[in-house]
Amino acid sequence: MKNLLIIGGSDAGISCGLRIKELNPAINVTILLKDEYPNLSICGIPYAIGGEVTPWQKLAHRTLIDLQATGLKFHMNTTVTAIQPDQHTVTAIETTTQTGKTYTYDQLLVATGALPKLPPITGLTTSNDHIQILHTMADYFAIESRLTSVKKVAIIGSGYIGLEIAEALVNRGLAVTIFQRGSEVLSTFDPELGAKIHQSLTDHGVNVITTARLAQVQPVDDQVQIQYADQQIDQFDLVLVVTGVKPNSNLLSEAGAKVDDHGAVVVNDQFQTSLPDIWAAGDLVATKHRLLGSTYLPLGTTSHKQGRVAGTNLAGQAAYFQGVVGTQVVKLFNLVAARTGLTTVEAQVAGFKPFTWTSTVDDHKAYIPGARPMTIQIIGDRQTGQLLGAQLIGAYGSEVAKRNDVYATAIFNQATVAEVSDLDLSYSPPLGAPWDAIQAATQAWELALIRDGQTTNQLLSEQQY
Amino acid sequence: MKNLLIIGGSDAGISCGLRIKELNPAINVTILLKDEYPNLSICGIPYAIGGEVTPWQKLAHRTLIDLQATGLKFHMNTTVTAIQPDQHTVTAIETTTQTGKTYTYDQLLVATGALPKLPPITGLTTSNDHIQILHTMADYFAIESRLTSVKKVAIIGSGYIGLEIAEALVNRGLAVTIFQRGSEVLSTFDPELGAKIHQSLTDHGVNVITTARLAQVQPVDDQVQIQYADQQIDQFDLVLVVTGVKPNSNLLSEAGAKVDDHGAVVVNDQFQTSLPDIWAAGDLVATKHRLLGSTYLPLGTTSHKQGRVAGTNLAGQAAYFQGVVGTQVVKLFNLVAARTGLTTVEAQVAGFKPFTWTSTVDDHKAYIPGARPMTIQIIGDRQTGQLLGAQLIGAYGSEVAKRNDVYATAIFNQATVAEVSDLDLSYSPPLGAPWDAIQAATQAWELALIRDGQTTNQLLSEQQY
Repeated sequence: MKNLLIIGGSDAGISCGLRIKELNPAINVTILLKDEYPNLSICGIPYAIGGEVTPWQKLAHRTLIDLQATGLKFHMNTTVTAIQPDQHTVTAIETTTQTGKTYTYDQLLVATGALPKLPPITGLTTSNDHIQILHTMADYFAIESRLTSVKKVAIIGSGYIGLEIAEALVNRGLAVTIFQRGSEVLSTFDPELGAKIHQSLTDHGVNVITTARLAQVQPVDDQVQIQYADQQIDQFDLVLVVTGVKPNSNLLSEAGAKVDDHGAVVVNDQFQTSLPDIWAAGDLVATKHRLLGSTYLPLGTTSHKQGRVAGTNLAGQAAYFQGVVGTQVVKLFNLVAARTGLTTVEAQVAGFKPFTWTSTVDDHKAYIPGARPMTIQIIGDRQTGQLLGAQLIGAYGSEVAKRNDVYATAIFNQATVAEVSDLDLSYSPPLGAPWDAIQAATQAWELALIRDGQTTNQLLSEQQY
Repeated sequence: MKNLLIIGGSDAGISCGLRIKELNPAINVTILLKDEYPNLSICGIPYAIGGEVTPWQKLAHRTLIDLQATGLKFHMNTTVTAIQPDQHTVTAIETTTQTGKTYTYDQLLVATGALPKLPPITGLTTSNDHIQILHTMADYFAIESRLTSVKKVAIIGSGYIGLEIAEALVNRGLAVTIFQRGSEVLSTFDPELGAKIHQSLTDHGVNVITTARLAQVQPVDDQVQIQYADQQIDQFDLVLVVTGVKPNSNLLSEAGAKVDDHGAVVVNDQFQTSLPDIWAAGDLVATKHRLLGSTYLPLGTTSHKQGRVAGTNLAGQAAYFQGVVGTQVVKLFNLVAARTGLTTVEAQVAGFKPFTWTSTVDDHKAYIPGARPMTIQIIGDRQTGQLLGAQLIGAYGSEVAKRNDVYATAIFNQATVAEVSDLDLSYSPPLGAPWDAIQAATQAWELALIRDGQTTNQLLSEQQY
């Protein structure tokens, strides 16, 4: 292989290109980019909105100069319109000059990411002066230009990005309302933990409206009116929409590639699509999950991993994606909420027999000043004892995220809940306990399961402990 | 089994007793304790010395009342003098009344811990008014009573405890000198990391003397004189000795139990000694290490684990100790240093072919204010790619300890260095990066090894990546 063409210059595309240049610099790598912002940390946009990151150029994981120094070649403002698998070509438009272009390839990586998934609300179709769907840097620029002249902002959607933007806008002194369709914010977490995030939002002055039934969003004078229940209407200067994403897979499906029921491109563990010499990685593909099989779980971390594995293969070395375990984290004001594995409901749906137990444990020995409690929920299988999931919430600075990652590593390795006690974790009184909070929570789960009706003998023999 | 007798009321003994009461409360558990301080967090003594923990009673992991509420029975101030395996008895002296006692058992757990290991320095044999060997609560009380009237203190030994006490004494406004026999402080770490700790000590006014050749310690007037090199002598108001420990195994060896070359009691993975119905756990036993086999590595975390596994077995359920991986952490001023696995030298001695690479990585995305660099050293095997060890040093509050524990969990599961990149670790810009610092360091190791002379093909095929 001499010429690799990559469509998309975000996490997966750049990771792939960089990996190839590490392993086999002789391969020509050309990246087609719809805009002018390669390798931008999209996850950082809320912090740019909040004013923590200025100028926005700092969001770049690497500068264009650094990227080009590795040998990667970029074509900016280049929107691909179609792929011709038989000809090994793609057609595109250079958008500043509206010039048609054709690119040839030996191998092609499609890394076009995701598109916003909009809820079925009348009046909510595209961004305009008062309604902004946040997804790209162009969206960010539009929002930033509006924020100086607004006071009252609605956010539709209370996932990670919605919450991070709520904090950002509170930090800018704006009045913020969050609308959440479900019964609790941060629906990828157990409601017990979501409620703590909800409380923190409320404590910081955010107006949180759950079980919101948004029927219509419409301009009224210089504002937007949202009807969010039968009789309830409110008006906002600006509405931000962050309601999740869907695979941006049209280019590939139109070229004949296999996609799944969610429209996600089907790839093997090396990231080959069903089309010859065409690969795909990132938010447009169905993701291997170690507990669920194939799923759709778009995340920057996963895109980086997938791009790297694809790049290793394209550089001539066999590599196989090992799958995710559903790890996520969000910081909100002074709280950190992290999760890995499955929630109780996800575990039930997947056919496990989850038993769930929630503990409150100090981050370090209470006799050292500054100890802070964290809430840890453990989800394990009643029958096999397998560790299925963990959810944590605690104070920023108390190692919540990386405690979560110890669970993620244990789940990755198919540990049982009981086996977490076998792990040789670090301890010093200002940093933990002889049984770290990680293990105190799993031991509490074990005891709770015994008391839940199983005999000790059953539990222990099942867990081989 | 109806009656379990435990000698020792610290980590291993109490963990064992508590585990039995969880699983099989009908078993009578009697604990013989040399002093009156069961279940005390000995690791917290430096913080009591520093004045962070007052009163010292807070050091108890659990109060005596809580312990007794579980059904555990205690005999305080009871020093065991001999074990009679054939009679299933132990003889003891109640030290307050000097009364001889005899206890019978069905099963016996010996959890007598460790004793100070003193270096061969003339004049250094027992504690006195000016020289204090720190090991027990009695030692702590003696030191505490002296500290109010001293100004200049020497610490012999620069392991964890020595360093923590140095910080404590600096916090109390005392002039502190640390003597270290080796060429760098904190000799369980690579000297590259030890040097950063050394610098921090110096920055905080501690006089650090490495490669110290201490020949003699002798009283001079109301002080102690230390000669630490051919021509160098200094005088101190108080000398604290924290130079490590050795197994307190005499009771068992005199009873005929098998001990190893270090004097550590030999046990199987269930903690049975070579004597029938006699078990041992904690700082007196040889420890299973997942990379080294049997070794001597006394630590509170390990004692807790061993006591719990012994207790599970004694409660009637088979359980097997899975071994340690050498995880340790220390906080010193605003730094945290953590390690797991083997150092480069330990790996060489053990017959591995270590390749070591040190990276400096931010704890979170640099575009979010407050990002702090941490140093991560990765030790991996050149030939198999196996992750052998990790050492980290960084700012307190930047999740150094639990990042270390992700490595510990990976090493526990026999991961290769390359496989660390497969782990699904959490990311949000204020908390990490799409490739966490954990993974950035292992990827840097991979690249460095390629550039160290191996061909890419060799490296990748060896690492199955």
